[in-house]
Amino acid sequence: MTAKRVGQFTVQFSQPPRIVGAFTLMGPREGQGPLGKYFDAIVDDYMWGEYQPEKAERKFLEHAARRALERAGVSENDVDYFIAGDLMNQIVSSTFSARSLGIPHIGVFAACATSTLGLSLAAMLVDGGFARRVLVATASHYQTAERQYRYPIELNIQRKPTNQWTATGGAAAVVAAEGEGPRISHVTVGRVMDWGVKDANHMGAAMAPAAMDTLLRHFQDTNTTPADFDLILTGDLAQHGSKLFRELVKREGHTLGGKHMDAGASLYSPEQQPGAGASGAVCSASVLLAYVLKEMAKGRYRRVLALATGCLHNALTTQQGDSCPGVCHALVLENG
Amino acid sequence: MTAKRVGQFTVQFSQPPRIVGAFTLMGPREGQGPLGKYFDAIVDDYMWGEYQPEKAERKFLEHAARRALERAGVSENDVDYFIAGDLMNQIVSSTFSARSLGIPHIGVFAACATSTLGLSLAAMLVDGGFARRVLVATASHYQTAERQYRYPIELNIQRKPTNQWTATGGAAAVVAAEGEGPRISHVTVGRVMDWGVKDANHMGAAMAPAAMDTLLRHFQDTNTTPADFDLILTGDLAQHGSKLFRELVKREGHTLGGKHMDAGASLYSPEQQPGAGASGAVCSASVLLAYVLKEMAKGRYRRVLALATGCLHNALTTQQGDSCPGVCHALVLENG
Repeated sequence: MTAKRVGQFTVQFSQPPRIVGAFTLMGPREGQGPLGKYFDAIVDDYMWGEYQPEKAERKFLEHAARRALERAGVSENDVDYFIAGDLMNQIVSSTFSARSLGIPHIGVFAACATSTLGLSLAAMLVDGGFARRVLVATASHYQTAERQYRYPIELNIQRKPTNQWTATGGAAAVVAAEGEGPRISHVTVGRVMDWGVKDANHMGAAMAPAAMDTLLRHFQDTNTTPADFDLILTGDLAQHGSKLFRELVKREGHTLGGKHMDAGASLYSPEQQPGAGASGAVCSASVLLAYVLKEMAKGRYRRVLALATGCLHNALTTQQGDSCPGVCHALVLENG
Repeated sequence: MTAKRVGQFTVQFSQPPRIVGAFTLMGPREGQGPLGKYFDAIVDDYMWGEYQPEKAERKFLEHAARRALERAGVSENDVDYFIAGDLMNQIVSSTFSARSLGIPHIGVFAACATSTLGLSLAAMLVDGGFARRVLVATASHYQTAERQYRYPIELNIQRKPTNQWTATGGAAAVVAAEGEGPRISHVTVGRVMDWGVKDANHMGAAMAPAAMDTLLRHFQDTNTTPADFDLILTGDLAQHGSKLFRELVKREGHTLGGKHMDAGASLYSPEQQPGAGASGAVCSASVLLAYVLKEMAKGRYRRVLALATGCLHNALTTQQGDSCPGVCHALVLENG
């Protein structure tokens, strides 16, 4: 029964499912960033005509999901599951979108690692014969995350250099057994790691050990090294977390060099003053589903290891003195 | 690729995975209720020696998970995934337990429908050959839910007749392809339904349409009627929601009669003054994994349809005037 597993922690598909359609729909700041040209659509108004940012976040998620269905050339009825999660308490952006879409809903939570967890589950459900197609989506919004996790925007709290800027947007993809698009060849679900970082303003440090753990377990299970990949995408470790991650991985004998790119460190330019970089569930989702997929289509990358990371605190755990656990879920995308 | 599906929405396993070990660990009020004798352990102190109820909730979840592993006769290393979710913002009871357990973590959210969503996913991952065994767990706590969703306990707010009492406890199970225990033969993942109920103090009404929708789709997909089951367990519709549910189902031509039991309406006696009944992610989880499994082992029930329901609002959506969407995930347990 475990013929589909390789090593201790990794699933390897013999007939890897494909991402047959994807859509990224981002806010204006994200559109102005270095990866702006890769996104499928930019909404110029953060509030998208809504009075409450939570309603806007929901709209980003739902619209990205609907447009991903269009890109895949299918309707809601052709999709068996809608796997979605987000940063809002009780993942309401996802559940309220599921209400409109009407597709049976599998709610997931992995904070900013939602994209790779969702895609991994989708690949397993498709490969296992439990679904014809699965729609995966996530979203985040600067204003909703700030006021839920930190402070009301109106307070204009001074940001720390290690703070990350929650990206605004929605990203979605359709996973299917047949069709055109890159294949999801491997999946490594992450363990929750906690090295005692108590500073919720330094999420990169909290997530770096999880990224290292999942990367090393993936290398070990699949007998691979950085040389086997054209790109190793982490997210959202941002500037400081990425540095820590590369240092931790180096101590274990692997040099990532130019192969490593971090979604959080790439979404904004320094001139946009994002602190350490970007975060938010849509950050690694959009870099994967826009930048990576499009560069794979061009042939620049053929084999990509995507390691989305999530910081698993909530506003109360931080107040109660808990440290911030991190998680990292990995998958491999291959052309062909 | 969809040979494992029957009808439009349901998965049917040809070699149904089994629940090979389960453990329920409940609070004192739950222990004193009509189902108290079915629970595997009662903790007499709601706070379990902790200063904060959130820490106690975490302990209920983690201990139930560890004891379920013991019951299944396996260790953490024999389990490939830990699927867990709870009501806390960012499901921190689950993620912090995952940190201690060290098993790769799939975080899910379906509010009080977490148990059947988690068990359904576990059954698919095991049947698909992606995992040898999967550990599924959830928990809830009266005090954490009250202060997160409603008011500080200290305010002593007058409860409404439709209010439900969040159950305190943890419940966990191990799903595997081989071993002793009832089989999960079918899975029907729910759609998010919303009939416009805006009263967050009447969750039974908000969830009843979802329970009806999933029940009818299951009946239709599998060509079954209430006569094909010894028990149809819903949860947590409680008194008023159950009445609505039976009425809605009756209008569609099905009379459930004595076959129907609701977890929320069964956990406490009227003398315990629980309002409309119990709720909380552990409510339907514990009734399923304690009462139902034990009565199945005795031979009283041979075939049970379990329909856990979840109310998908958060504290902010209610304040912002949103209605409360509901969801219901179903599975069939069979002896033999």
